[in-house]
Amino acid sequence: MALFNRIVIVGMGLIGGSIGMAARERGLAQEVVGLIRNKNRRKAILKAKAADEVSTACSRALRGADLVVLGVPISAMEHCAKQIAQHIDPSAVVIDVGSVKGQVVEAMEKVFAHGGKFVGSHPMAGSEKSGVDAARADLFDKALCVVTPTGNTDPEALDRVGKFWEALGARTCLCSAQDHDRVIAAVSHLPHVLAAALMHLTLKVGEGFEDPIKFIGPAFKDMTRIAASPAELWADILLGNRSAVLRSTTLYVEKLEEIKEALLRRDRAELLAFFDRARLMREGI
Amino acid sequence: MALFNRIVIVGMGLIGGSIGMAARERGLAQEVVGLIRNKNRRKAILKAKAADEVSTACSRALRGADLVVLGVPISAMEHCAKQIAQHIDPSAVVIDVGSVKGQVVEAMEKVFAHGGKFVGSHPMAGSEKSGVDAARADLFDKALCVVTPTGNTDPEALDRVGKFWEALGARTCLCSAQDHDRVIAAVSHLPHVLAAALMHLTLKVGEGFEDPIKFIGPAFKDMTRIAASPAELWADILLGNRSAVLRSTTLYVEKLEEIKEALLRRDRAELLAFFDRARLMREGI
Repeated sequence: MALFNRIVIVGMGLIGGSIGMAARERGLAQEVVGLIRNKNRRKAILKAKAADEVSTACSRALRGADLVVLGVPISAMEHCAKQIAQHIDPSAVVIDVGSVKGQVVEAMEKVFAHGGKFVGSHPMAGSEKSGVDAARADLFDKALCVVTPTGNTDPEALDRVGKFWEALGARTCLCSAQDHDRVIAAVSHLPHVLAAALMHLTLKVGEGFEDPIKFIGPAFKDMTRIAASPAELWADILLGNRSAVLRSTTLYVEKLEEIKEALLRRDRAELLAFFDRARLMREGI
Repeated sequence: MALFNRIVIVGMGLIGGSIGMAARERGLAQEVVGLIRNKNRRKAILKAKAADEVSTACSRALRGADLVVLGVPISAMEHCAKQIAQHIDPSAVVIDVGSVKGQVVEAMEKVFAHGGKFVGSHPMAGSEKSGVDAARADLFDKALCVVTPTGNTDPEALDRVGKFWEALGARTCLCSAQDHDRVIAAVSHLPHVLAAALMHLTLKVGEGFEDPIKFIGPAFKDMTRIAASPAELWADILLGNRSAVLRSTTLYVEKLEEIKEALLRRDRAELLAFFDRARLMREGI
């Protein structure tokens, strides 16, 4: 049985497009509608089978929607949500898919305070690629989706959102927006900074040298894969989770300074302990 | 036609073992001999087909050797080389496979000044695994092997070493030991520090939280894969390439501090430029 009658996905990029593909393939709704700004992308979305119908008209698309997925970038989310709030049924469930939760959940709860039942969620799936062309119906298979309810969250909406993500193939986990942001800053946002910074360093040490890229191996490639991610997306994620990213970066730099100190002292025991502890933790994953 | 008559590989770990397997499979020598310290490992080496013969007796093993491969860890190399130097034919070619070249090449040229034609080389292949059980005959396929001759290097030995690596499947590149160390510090040694430090940070932000590991995605896994590498190996590589690693780490921390400053100022343009430049470079790989 379909979980929803009419799902409207606002923004059909990698995540929005993959939700559409998976929801259609798994029969999670009677209709899946893609609501986009640029009508030129209509063909690509239909070709990818990411929606039954693509629209650029907010009011018409949202009529009868019982689930609205905000699939737009964080920087566009508040503006977009305000337009949507005028057209949705007060009982409609609204979710976002943003990588930052504290700021987003706070803003969304204000926008949907008088209609629309908002539940924040963050499907931890993605790719360094973007756009509906990179979308995949199996993107959420076995991925974790963090759902971040607050005291204002409607229990029934929360339950339906959890079932929706699980029906898309994800595992779900409930967590406060603040804990989410703090941990994600360390395990996802900071790693994007680290990968990009490693590319910059490589260019710098390559000055006056033939080609440092010639010297890279599989480890370097793995570590910098995500440096190919879209710049706008990540600039906005960092700004959206600013204080947690700053805190993580500070702690990380402190660790690097400790290692520098150990190297300066030629302290082999400390270097051994550093690598050995990391190894044990990594093997536990 | 075999390139060498008798190859003796000193230390049959991942790299030494893989050289033995590949040299035997490709018929690069009449005999491949593994020279090891711990005779209990004999069976595993023969089972892996990494050598025709395994010995713990230096003088006997080295008799008639025309290529000696020093496959021991950097920290053991000088001690090991001194023992070998007493037993080898003065015309024998000697190579190492260390990830650090400046310090190693300088030490080896002293040890083999009166017998043995030393050529420094660094096959850029490996794995987070170690030991002969992880060895593979195709480990060097398409890998880069950096060969670091000096003014003292015998031209004929250099030529034969290049041909040997190419026969093992590698591409070769000549480079000074100093340039090698500077660039490798950035693209290989520092990344191992970064991966290990990211594991430590994850533990730290996980304090008072259920389990940060639950929140990791493919990006984190890719970025920390090499954190599972052997601690002793990497502690010694860092110490062996100390000044270049310190310099790279300092430059890297400076870049992180720049990004922190940009975040503090909410400077979206700088963050965009940072990620965009990294993306362009990464896509060029």
